[in-house]
Amino acid sequence: MDQRPLGIFDSGIGGLTVVRALHELLPGEKLIYLGDTARVPYGNKSADTITRYSREISAFLLTQNVKAVIVACNTASAYALAALGRELPVPVFGVIEPGVSAALVATRAHRVGIIGTIGTINSGVYQRRLRQRQPDIDITARATPLLVPLIEEDWLEHPATRAILEEYLQPLRLARIDTLVLACTHYPLLKPLLLSLLGRDIALVDSAETCARFVRETLAQAGRLAAADGEQPVDVYLTDLPVHFQEAGERFLRQGLRKVEVVAVDGK
Amino acid sequence: MDQRPLGIFDSGIGGLTVVRALHELLPGEKLIYLGDTARVPYGNKSADTITRYSREISAFLLTQNVKAVIVACNTASAYALAALGRELPVPVFGVIEPGVSAALVATRAHRVGIIGTIGTINSGVYQRRLRQRQPDIDITARATPLLVPLIEEDWLEHPATRAILEEYLQPLRLARIDTLVLACTHYPLLKPLLLSLLGRDIALVDSAETCARFVRETLAQAGRLAAADGEQPVDVYLTDLPVHFQEAGERFLRQGLRKVEVVAVDGK
Repeated sequence: MDQRPLGIFDSGIGGLTVVRALHELLPGEKLIYLGDTARVPYGNKSADTITRYSREISAFLLTQNVKAVIVACNTASAYALAALGRELPVPVFGVIEPGVSAALVATRAHRVGIIGTIGTINSGVYQRRLRQRQPDIDITARATPLLVPLIEEDWLEHPATRAILEEYLQPLRLARIDTLVLACTHYPLLKPLLLSLLGRDIALVDSAETCARFVRETLAQAGRLAAADGEQPVDVYLTDLPVHFQEAGERFLRQGLRKVEVVAVDGK
Repeated sequence: MDQRPLGIFDSGIGGLTVVRALHELLPGEKLIYLGDTARVPYGNKSADTITRYSREISAFLLTQNVKAVIVACNTASAYALAALGRELPVPVFGVIEPGVSAALVATRAHRVGIIGTIGTINSGVYQRRLRQRQPDIDITARATPLLVPLIEEDWLEHPATRAILEEYLQPLRLARIDTLVLACTHYPLLKPLLLSLLGRDIALVDSAETCARFVRETLAQAGRLAAADGEQPVDVYLTDLPVHFQEAGERFLRQGLRKVEVVAVDGK
């Protein structure tokens, strides 16, 4: 057993979907979240910059005595996970491997779609890992950079969001995918609209949920879960307090935010 | 006469519309641009964070021996201009005062609309300055946070952009504005669509153009223009090299990019 908290980070508030999934699966774990809202988004920034930011945030989480670091951001997982895995003294989890595994379980026709930020899609990491594990797989990947701003605007059912998704999804429909990987922690909020556009038969792989399940299994096998001791808190740290954070944060977390504190991680 | 360059900065690449306007008006001025692409966008970040970033960037521009600093970002002008004006040893120009003056010249009915980022609109600075100078003015302001991502996606005539603008513009139409302030340096790229939605009679105040004219007049009066000596270069510095920068940059600048260099301004 290990009573230390789990550290989770994301470029902004999207990673709160991972926190929500972890908190539901593992209510006895103390969770510390860092959202890099001063530098959000990461989706169209370079590998070097994202790796530097991820190192700075991990250093902050280690000062909080975390037992593991969870990279709750697909772009940071795509670019920085290997470096963090080598450098940090605690286990590091990303969202990509669990998503890849879940997609391979879900697809019957071996035709998988992926949507994500420009950074995640251009990195090719999902495509590469899927092909390594299932060489005959047919993959259609599409960068969908407008989805995060639409979700942050809370236009989850808006006609404009529907029109934009229709366009983004066209190549994936043509490829007759049976499984869609939501390769961005914001996207689970679009699940109802995606199901209405793609039909109920599509399997949606939610990287937040799959990541949380993977973390639980791994910690359980290693005997590092916390002793069950009632519901533990979620502490939220942000590098900037954005306008309307409270309501947006609660939308992602689906519960009240107890403690929110602004911290600097860039040494200022 | 003053042969030193002009320093211009923005949160990202939108300020290149100001650079383009300055270069057209003042081809003999050497221009140095800093786009803070590692931390873009500023639009929904806090006043403290934006002021800190603006100070860091100004310090970089001063190392380039600039004779003035032009804040080519409405959000940074709204929050950081006063601090920079007090602290920097060179003149500091923003985009807001020139836009306010141009709007007051343009409006006949004294009914003005403003669209901009959440930060710019919530700061209330345009509204306050317009009212100070024209107390009976009728102002309708609307934050339009999806426009920057749509422009960066290059969906300038896309049906989704049209649908989103229709919704954003509805309160401004109802208020029967005759003048619309484009309070974000990205927005000039939407001029054709805005004219088609609002009719040719609307006056669009382009903060990039009005700022460039204001800088020219002020420097001329102070005798600080450069001696005409052929066309001078535009040097572009970025804090991160984003995916697709070259094509996006040239779309904003409407010319080839000669020199683009990545620099750190946060002390790393």
